Amino acid sequence: MPAQKRTANITWNGGLLDGSGTIVSVTSGAISNLPVSWKSRAEEPGGATSPEELIAAANASCFAMALSAGLARDGHAPELLEISATCTLTLDGGPKITSMDIHVRGKVPGIDQATFAAAAEGAGQNCPVSTALKQALEIRTTAELI
Amino acid sequence: MPAQKRTANITWNGGLLDGSGTIVSVTSGAISNLPVSWKSRAEEPGGATSPEELIAAANASCFAMALSAGLARDGHAPELLEISATCTLTLDGGPKITSMDIHVRGKVPGIDQATFAAAAEGAGQNCPVSTALKQALEIRTTAELI
Repeated sequence: MPAQKRTANITWNGGLLDGSGTIVSVTSGAISNLPVSWKSRAEEPGGATSPEELIAAANASCFAMALSAGLARDGHAPELLEISATCTLTLDGGPKITSMDIHVRGKVPGIDQATFAAAAEGAGQNCPVSTALKQALEIRTTAELI
Repeated sequence: MPAQKRTANITWNGGLLDGSGTIVSVTSGAISNLPVSWKSRAEEPGGATSPEELIAAANASCFAMALSAGLARDGHAPELLEISATCTLTLDGGPKITSMDIHVRGKVPGIDQATFAAAAEGAGQNCPVSTALKQALEIRTTAELI
C-alpha cells in the first residue's frame, strides 16, 4: 500500500511575543486560516488554536481508530466511543509537552469493564500517534462503559 | 508559570472500516465537527481530516514559534516565515508515522542563508513538538530565504 503524506501550510509574521501565525491550509481542506500565537498557547487561548490541542485531536482520533479496530477484531464492534484527550504543556524551564491524558467512554455491546479497559490501554500505548509520542510523553488512558 | 492544558473531544461510531468519527470540539473553539475516518487517512482524504495533517499543523506552528524566537534573539526578527510540514504514514506492516519534512521560506532582514538554515535546523530539532516526536520520527528541515 502506498505511503500517505499529509501537509500543513502556515505563515508567521514577526517575533515570538509580538508576532502571530496562521494555519493557512491542510491537505484535506478541512482546516483553513486558523490563527495561532504564543500568547494563545501559553496563556488563555482566546479562540486561537495551539499545537497542543492539534496533537490532542490527532491522538484522540488515532486512538479511536485503533480501539474500534481492536474491539471489532474481538467481536465487540463499538456502537459509540466518546474520547477526550488532554495535552499538557509545562512552561517552567522552557516549554515542554509532558503528558497526554486520554479518557474514553464506550457503548460496546457484550463487553465487560476489564476487557474494555484493557483494549483502551492497548490502543493508548500502541496507536500510531501514541507510538510517535510515547518515548517523550507520559500517555495515560482511562476507560468507562456507558 | 502554570502548565497549560488543551483538550480535544471526539466521537467514533462503529468499527475501523465501516465506522467514522468526528472531532467535535477543542479547548479554544477554533475547530469543531471535523469528520475523520480510516479511509480518509489511508486513501484519499476527500475533505476529511487525519491525525497526520493535524500533527503536521502542530509541528509547523510550534516550529514557527521556536524559529521566530531564535531569530529575534539573534537580532533577526523575521518579517515573514512560510512553513510547510509534511507527515508521512506508511501502511505496509501496519500503520506507522515515519517522518516529518519541514520546509521554511523566510523573509529575514540582514541574515545570510547559512545562518538562517542553522536556525531552522535548530528549531526543527528542538521545538517542543519536535522534541515530543523526534525519538520516533525522522524530522528533516530545509530552509531558503526569499
